[in-house]
Amino acid sequence: MAIDRNILERITFDDQGLVPAIVQDVKTKEVLMLAYMNNEAIMTTLETKRGVYYSRSRQELWVKGSTSGNTQHVVGLSYDCDGDTILLQVEQTGVACHTGEKSCFFTNVIQAPKKQDVINELYALIRERKESM
Amino acid sequence: MAIDRNILERITFDDQGLVPAIVQDVKTKEVLMLAYMNNEAIMTTLETKRGVYYSRSRQELWVKGSTSGNTQHVVGLSYDCDGDTILLQVEQTGVACHTGEKSCFFTNVIQAPKKQDVINELYALIRERKESM
Repeated sequence: MAIDRNILERITFDDQGLVPAIVQDVKTKEVLMLAYMNNEAIMTTLETKRGVYYSRSRQELWVKGSTSGNTQHVVGLSYDCDGDTILLQVEQTGVACHTGEKSCFFTNVIQAPKKQDVINELYALIRERKESM
Repeated sequence: MAIDRNILERITFDDQGLVPAIVQDVKTKEVLMLAYMNNEAIMTTLETKRGVYYSRSRQELWVKGSTSGNTQHVVGLSYDCDGDTILLQVEQTGVACHTGEKSCFFTNVIQAPKKQDVINELYALIRERKESM
């Protein structure tokens, strides 16, 4: 697929030339992390399909997993209505967080109820089928 | 439940006193939007369980849905490993995006494959049960 380089014109970068990128596991839909991208990070991600960010602490391009092996294969990339946030959907190898947790968001202030989506959705499906018989 | 006011000490706000907040639909796990919170937005969200943000354009507290009716009931709140991003899990009334789309992330550069999770997970579950019989 040809890379749409026009994306850069539609993204609003902040005064540091960065845009926040939400990274989501495409399979589980868990939010894994938030990172920042600059021009080059976006283009490199589009070209290589690997999660590539800009490290604000090291002030350099950061290929996720290049040292840890916890790479990200990017299978989806979208941006929001005002073009100032990117959403990446990835296949995550290993864990996303440097602490060893799968997701960086492991500290809960309010604990969301555990999902039982498969069972609930299956139940809804069966009920729907039964009602339409 | 008592509100954990210590959360504010564990959050790293930027030089504007803000922290990005990812908002996710607790049921579908779709990422709905990214907004920004200040001290007051966080405390008001914890107290009211409504999605309350800081509008950078209007420079004021913004109770999501106060004019549109598209409110958010916050059922989960966590922060990431370095405390500089918040993740909210919400029950969204209506749509999250001011354009009328459910999610703000409706513009795809790379289109992620459509999920067939319910079927796949059900298949895996049935296969697992069969194998363990």
